[in-house]
Amino acid sequence: MIITKQNLLETHQRIKNYIHRTPVLTSHLINEMAGSELFFKCENFQKMGAFKMRGATNAILQLSKTEKEFGVATHSSGNFAQALALAAKLQNIKAYVVMPSNAPEIKKAAVCGYGGEIIECEPNLQARESTLNDLVNKTGAVFLHPYNHYHVIQGQGTAAMELIEDHSDLDGIFTPVGGGGLLAGTALAAHHFTKGTKVFAGEPIGADDAWQSFQKGEIIPQTNPNTIADGLLTSLGDKTFPIIKEHVQDILRVEEEEIIAAMRLIWERMKIVAEPSSTVALAALLKEKEKFKNQKIGIIISGGNVQLDKLPF
Amino acid sequence: MIITKQNLLETHQRIKNYIHRTPVLTSHLINEMAGSELFFKCENFQKMGAFKMRGATNAILQLSKTEKEFGVATHSSGNFAQALALAAKLQNIKAYVVMPSNAPEIKKAAVCGYGGEIIECEPNLQARESTLNDLVNKTGAVFLHPYNHYHVIQGQGTAAMELIEDHSDLDGIFTPVGGGGLLAGTALAAHHFTKGTKVFAGEPIGADDAWQSFQKGEIIPQTNPNTIADGLLTSLGDKTFPIIKEHVQDILRVEEEEIIAAMRLIWERMKIVAEPSSTVALAALLKEKEKFKNQKIGIIISGGNVQLDKLPF
Repeated sequence: MIITKQNLLETHQRIKNYIHRTPVLTSHLINEMAGSELFFKCENFQKMGAFKMRGATNAILQLSKTEKEFGVATHSSGNFAQALALAAKLQNIKAYVVMPSNAPEIKKAAVCGYGGEIIECEPNLQARESTLNDLVNKTGAVFLHPYNHYHVIQGQGTAAMELIEDHSDLDGIFTPVGGGGLLAGTALAAHHFTKGTKVFAGEPIGADDAWQSFQKGEIIPQTNPNTIADGLLTSLGDKTFPIIKEHVQDILRVEEEEIIAAMRLIWERMKIVAEPSSTVALAALLKEKEKFKNQKIGIIISGGNVQLDKLPF
Repeated sequence: MIITKQNLLETHQRIKNYIHRTPVLTSHLINEMAGSELFFKCENFQKMGAFKMRGATNAILQLSKTEKEFGVATHSSGNFAQALALAAKLQNIKAYVVMPSNAPEIKKAAVCGYGGEIIECEPNLQARESTLNDLVNKTGAVFLHPYNHYHVIQGQGTAAMELIEDHSDLDGIFTPVGGGGLLAGTALAAHHFTKGTKVFAGEPIGADDAWQSFQKGEIIPQTNPNTIADGLLTSLGDKTFPIIKEHVQDILRVEEEEIIAAMRLIWERMKIVAEPSSTVALAALLKEKEKFKNQKIGIIISGGNVQLDKLPF
């Protein structure tokens, strides 16, 4: 499947009444530090606190009436779990979320709070997949993958579409990369709606499967990721990777301290709460700032769900 | 001196090119908790991170050319010190700030960062006043009081003016109260620009001089304040108190845990960084929420300057 310009336009029309059009913020001080002009698309202000709401909403809205009756299912211990639960609730359909038994209570509480039903499994890949399969067989719910799904990718692309609509002359756009849904969607948006805006990703060195895959030209699975950016622990998928390979300019790796410093900068100077996974993009830009001197750069702040009693500073 | 409607209109015209028009944010979840419809005027996004920028700018812009040549001086270890330094810098004039020797390094650094000159003194009232007097005598700088000054009060009132311009049908507006500059300015704005919007203040029980003064009808000085809301430690002044006495509906006191809970709520749900002093207003509303059921209430988030490595959660 190829995601066309028309697909993206229809996606935005489809979901726009169910999501927030998030603001684009700027900071004189961070511009001065970066030597470039930065435009922060604040998906931390999105419903449930992250861009994932866009993809989840788009995927649900494209289900048939019959499919909707059986509900949706996913596996996630992160923002997609909450996003699917809330998006399903807004459409009055049922959402099942398979979560590892060791997932933080606060994340389980958030999914429950949005009306999602949690099915716990042992914290390993095999248990997760078999639990999900059993669930889907039993309930007839439609499985929606957190990122490796074209409708999800389309939805995530709408954040960059709005950013481009607000600022049509960007030289580049930075996003973080985990499973690649946001990055692939952003790359397609830039491809279809700009004249040459380049797309870059920031990735933690401690979870650099996307960088490795990008270098090698084939998917290298994530193994033993170790980073504070807990939304970026997943591997690329066979739907996200080809788009990234074709349309992304580069993937830049950053150290943990650089992620934390960028996070602190955003909190202290912009007075907004951004989760570590979302500050990886700014960290990558600042690390390579010489290459982007005097350019106009969009940065997608992907989410703001952080546990305030476990901050790295 | 009476501050007229015309004074306030001229003040906003005078300063508007030097300050940010800050956004008004809303939160479905906090509305549900409160049982009322809340409109948060986000002065944490103001230049230097607090509403104090408004009053400092207005006071400086009303100096004569000769006065400007000698610069301005104040005593403050908080946001007014930074505000005066930045406002002076933007007008190319000199700012002197008397700060106690035990003021946090981070606050001194912020004043220096904005180009202000710090004069240290012993951490007591007498030393502060004599140091300031010596400074003014030596330099000829104009002393601008952080809150007990009509031009400062006028400037602080412009935050509520903008809020009222955006939402003309508010039943009430809540602010925190320390020295009373923001509260007096807000009360005057509501008096001149609304048909009966009532103004309320939140105050920590551990620093309740304004509540005591309001009850007794005369200024009761602050003694041994003890609260996390470090911007609210000052006493009311002879210029702020009469305005408050005349135009404020009520002052509501809150416990420390209520301040911290409101702070956490704002950070977690609105994804913005607000300092404890600024969350006292929401804490007061939530404490008395039954009285404000189904009303439209403005809340001024006064600032966002917090030390991230010393959070109460």
